[in-house]
Amino acid sequence: MIIVIKPGATQEQVKEVLDQLESHGLKAHISEGSERIIIGVIGDKSRLSTDSLEVLPAVEKLVPIMESYKLASKAFRPEGTSFEIKNVTLGGKELVMMAGPCAVESREQLLESARIVKKAGADFLRGGAYKPRTSPYSFQGLEEQGLKFLAEAREATGLKVVTEVVDPISVDVVCEYADILQIGARNMQNFQLLKTVGRAGKPVLLKRGIAATIDEWLNAAEYVMNEGNYQVILCERGIRTFETATRNTLDLSAVAVLKQHCHLPVIVDPSHGTGHWRLVRPMARAAVAAGADGLMIEVHPKPDEAMSDGMQSLTPENFSILMDEVNKIARVMGRNQP
Amino acid sequence: MIIVIKPGATQEQVKEVLDQLESHGLKAHISEGSERIIIGVIGDKSRLSTDSLEVLPAVEKLVPIMESYKLASKAFRPEGTSFEIKNVTLGGKELVMMAGPCAVESREQLLESARIVKKAGADFLRGGAYKPRTSPYSFQGLEEQGLKFLAEAREATGLKVVTEVVDPISVDVVCEYADILQIGARNMQNFQLLKTVGRAGKPVLLKRGIAATIDEWLNAAEYVMNEGNYQVILCERGIRTFETATRNTLDLSAVAVLKQHCHLPVIVDPSHGTGHWRLVRPMARAAVAAGADGLMIEVHPKPDEAMSDGMQSLTPENFSILMDEVNKIARVMGRNQP
Amino acid sequence: MIIVIKPGATQEQVKEVLDQLESHGLKAHISEGSERIIIGVIGDKSRLSTDSLEVLPAVEKLVPIMESYKLASKAFRPEGTSFEIKNVTLGGKELVMMAGPCAVESREQLLESARIVKKAGADFLRGGAYKPRTSPYSFQGLEEQGLKFLAEAREATGLKVVTEVVDPISVDVVCEYADILQIGARNMQNFQLLKTVGRAGKPVLLKRGIAATIDEWLNAAEYVMNEGNYQVILCERGIRTFETATRNTLDLSAVAVLKQHCHLPVIVDPSHGTGHWRLVRPMARAAVAAGADGLMIEVHPKPDEAMSDGMQSLTPENFSILMDEVNKIARVMGRNQP
Amino acid sequence: MIIVIKPGATQEQVKEVLDQLESHGLKAHISEGSERIIIGVIGDKSRLSTDSLEVLPAVEKLVPIMESYKLASKAFRPEGTSFEIKNVTLGGKELVMMAGPCAVESREQLLESARIVKKAGADFLRGGAYKPRTSPYSFQGLEEQGLKFLAEAREATGLKVVTEVVDPISVDVVCEYADILQIGARNMQNFQLLKTVGRAGKPVLLKRGIAATIDEWLNAAEYVMNEGNYQVILCERGIRTFETATRNTLDLSAVAVLKQHCHLPVIVDPSHGTGHWRLVRPMARAAVAAGADGLMIEVHPKPDEAMSDGMQSLTPENFSILMDEVNKIARVMGRNQP
Repeated sequence: MIIVIKPGATQEQVKEVLDQLESHGLKAHISEGSERIIIGVIGDKSRLSTDSLEVLPAVEKLVPIMESYKLASKAFRPEGTSFEIKNVTLGGKELVMMAGPCAVESREQLLESARIVKKAGADFLRGGAYKPRTSPYSFQGLEEQGLKFLAEAREATGLKVVTEVVDPISVDVVCEYADILQIGARNMQNFQLLKTVGRAGKPVLLKRGIAATIDEWLNAAEYVMNEGNYQVILCERGIRTFETATRNTLDLSAVAVLKQHCHLPVIVDPSHGTGHWRLVRPMARAAVAAGADGLMIEVHPKPDEAMSDGMQSLTPENFSILMDEVNKIARVMGRNQP
Repeated sequence: MIIVIKPGATQEQVKEVLDQLESHGLKAHISEGSERIIIGVIGDKSRLSTDSLEVLPAVEKLVPIMESYKLASKAFRPEGTSFEIKNVTLGGKELVMMAGPCAVESREQLLESARIVKKAGADFLRGGAYKPRTSPYSFQGLEEQGLKFLAEAREATGLKVVTEVVDPISVDVVCEYADILQIGARNMQNFQLLKTVGRAGKPVLLKRGIAATIDEWLNAAEYVMNEGNYQVILCERGIRTFETATRNTLDLSAVAVLKQHCHLPVIVDPSHGTGHWRLVRPMARAAVAAGADGLMIEVHPKPDEAMSDGMQSLTPENFSILMDEVNKIARVMGRNQP
Repeated sequence: MIIVIKPGATQEQVKEVLDQLESHGLKAHISEGSERIIIGVIGDKSRLSTDSLEVLPAVEKLVPIMESYKLASKAFRPEGTSFEIKNVTLGGKELVMMAGPCAVESREQLLESARIVKKAGADFLRGGAYKPRTSPYSFQGLEEQGLKFLAEAREATGLKVVTEVVDPISVDVVCEYADILQIGARNMQNFQLLKTVGRAGKPVLLKRGIAATIDEWLNAAEYVMNEGNYQVILCERGIRTFETATRNTLDLSAVAVLKQHCHLPVIVDPSHGTGHWRLVRPMARAAVAAGADGLMIEVHPKPDEAMSDGMQSLTPENFSILMDEVNKIARVMGRNQP
Repeated sequence: MIIVIKPGATQEQVKEVLDQLESHGLKAHISEGSERIIIGVIGDKSRLSTDSLEVLPAVEKLVPIMESYKLASKAFRPEGTSFEIKNVTLGGKELVMMAGPCAVESREQLLESARIVKKAGADFLRGGAYKPRTSPYSFQGLEEQGLKFLAEAREATGLKVVTEVVDPISVDVVCEYADILQIGARNMQNFQLLKTVGRAGKPVLLKRGIAATIDEWLNAAEYVMNEGNYQVILCERGIRTFETATRNTLDLSAVAVLKQHCHLPVIVDPSHGTGHWRLVRPMARAAVAAGADGLMIEVHPKPDEAMSDGMQSLTPENFSILMDEVNKIARVMGRNQP
């Protein structure tokens, strides 16, 4: 951390800063420039509240040098993290495909969805049993009954199951049925939920919050990892900007940034990221070209009957074209695709 | 709702739209223009998923006409909502002042804070016992012990207590000690929490999410009200934008927008809204001039020793000046200030 | 400036950095921490391109310490700048009111507008003769004829004239008629235009760009001041965010930030800032309470016949109420109002 | 356009709306719902100011149905636009590569850059002779001398030249030397400049403004096309968001949106879009996979000596790897690459 001293600060005021550093066992390196004094702070800053420094009269601003996350940092595992869920490797050479409807709506809808995405080559079945919805009057999900349909679809097709958990209370029941626990964008900073899934012993798919910086996102991953669970997958799904032509702005540069600063597998959800089915295929291809380890795609047997997100769901036919297109890009990227 | 039909849609495709409306008991008014056909939809749309319409081949786009919230809507109570908490009226003629430290750090710090803000004229003591923090390594709050200190400070000063609840599990314990349950910005769309506080029988202070539209915010209020609890206070606390000179961008126009579209009391938190104590007084004045019913201000006996948010906390002296300034503005606004 | 060295950088790579600093006559202060080496750079950095440092293999990042603007900086004139235009002082004790229609539409419309705003107490008449419009098919302004009407209105009422100039070529003709040259939001970084008005010898009203940081805005002011013209007025008029309930998000905290970092007069335009006439009065009051030195308000004799921005224009009656309200706030703020 | 009538509007007030429509020769279709009256407006709306409607007491809101641009609309040329500049086709089967330094710094630097990018397979040489810079103290470009070096580099290598024009006055001189006139992001709504280049008879590369919606961008293209110049290339170069890990947020979904709504060629600039050379290669690949017709890449013989944007410039070696990677993706996308 660097402390920039205000022009005109008195020696006494500067001493106050140095005293506070010393009282926390930190060392100070002072550089006196023509226009500013700068103090480099050295030592373990974790016990120091930076806020208590910022209010000192001598302090103009603090400049953090190190990230606040450690376990999620690239430096922690420079070689990258990969792990297997049943026979599929996340963060490895394959492009991992997760697909299925936005919400589990009925047994028939889900089983048909599962057969469709399995046939096209997906590895995971997605589908929400618990649905966080902006309005209390929108469809809220089938809850445990939905989880049972997901498990049945797994039995029938061999697909693994990824599904969202929305509060600490239902983590146990979701764990009974799911292979991956998904944390949705709205819950990225629901810290109690992050800690609970961190202790649940299941891989976690952590979606980026709609207005979360990459730094905050990695700190959220740190909450999970700090509980001892290192099987975390990051999922870019679009951020909120001024542009209204798309539902969100899919930030594919985040994939490349994460590959530099973090060791965890990264996947992309172009369905929520764009909000329009016509944009899903181009952005799925782009995500793979940017280096994503997998994709999460909304597919519905009949998008025009979907209870949510029909607008951004692919038909079976379009999903099959998408699989073909992304496999071609993945091969160019050196991945082992069929 | 209005449905805009694509140029070139066939009669058959348009019929598909009309059939879907009819099957949900809705009536259609068709306008054929020179360039577009437009369908006005009439009836109770709550059972219809708009997504299922948007994917029909004839549909170019849907345009919603009505808000999705009802209980929070101005039309529900055009005269406005006001309610008493002990002897203080929210949403009435007085400007309601809530003040105190960001976090409850110790018995002494809290009692001293309470005495300071009471003396300057505050009505409510704020202070977090459960602290949602970006990093798992930051101070997370004193939890129930903190709540006990808050209750003790209430006894000692007569201030009412507003404090944050961060997950459904701890709602009960917070209810034992608090006069108002605060929902923080990160939890504005934690729907399970909203429903739980909706059933808890205590007034709720609902902060705006960092990237929430006013419409989403009012839908979050609707979650609370839909459980039968109409004592909801909305708190503007800044939104996330590209500007980095301030921690957030305090959106004071939201106060005026809410006064037009909603009947609930509105307060403003310029401490989080700006992130710098030097900006708190001007923005507190501006908030009152914009029509806010109250303010929430961070005050710390010694900001340079605060464990969080010291940078945006006022000293006792500055808070006292702020009280004087906002009271003057409040009187000009026709409020009953001392 | 501070240079943070990458972990693992070799001594040779660090030397490369030091050599580059030395070759530009700069001194380096090195702090070796447990996790990072940090170099403080001292001397006149103006001849050094920071980009050329950032690409050196040893460099993790550069942290600027000083602002890039000098003439606009508070340090340049800590006492603040005020100047007179005819008999009105900008940046002084009075609240300066600029009002009038969005565009000059006709002689009658302008003269009537001028009489209305004069009668209500305005100091300046605003009105666009050159209109930058999003679509080429929208009304583009009356150009020089519009300027003549403005001059005639000045004759008739004694109001001063502020009007927009949109390109370097028309600066001369606008100077013939205007008392203040307005630079619109879209042109805040039209550097050729900034230089041209900087040399024109007239006061300049510089609107903030829709996505400009305060820092970029002050650098734009620096372009004008660097030509020798220090009579610059800054005008906050809303920034672009994700919120769609308002046309822009009026950033009133910018007023307080500018008062800290800059010495120039600051005014606020709540008409463009909100885009809805119902929000103009509350935000005008809030702007004055936040410390603004003046306001710019759109007023139209018949908003329902306006050729642009009717939606955000006040009727004569509403403008008269606004004047009354803001004068009350201004007096509380210690200003000399009638 | 659709007009939504306020609940409680009187018949007389509604009549006022109908009268205004009629007086502009427009027809109204009225739909009376249970909660709202809706009016569909039919006819040529171009002479009607929507603002004048919005202020009528009966009007709740207006909903535009059609885009305001016509020549840029997909409907104008559903088959897409392609055109040749010397022997290179924009908007055709090839991926068009533009590369070179941010700024023309010297004869040697430019000629060396040209040789490097030519050898790697580029079609166009980029390089700024006029540089719009945030601070007046930054390097502002070599102006006409820079243009001469560009022309010399074209002679020497056969590359075509694309270079920025920053104000109407210098359009003529830039036309003497350039094959494509580039309009930078800051000037996307410099309407006088757009009209001037529209009349200049040279192809125009129009960069997206940092906070421009796609709709505003297409309206800017409309300004150029409305002067009779249909040879416009759109260049996505990142938008401003809250994320600070990248210089801008490259919005690749804009490529797919443009391909749906517009017929013009689309290219992507991942150098400005990300601001970090390490992110340029992944985002260049992603842009091609998303469907871009070309790329603009900053390359510098010695990025560590660049006078601007060195941080985002590729070394010759990295550019050569990039060419290889994007060619592979382009072939998968069905383009004719070497």
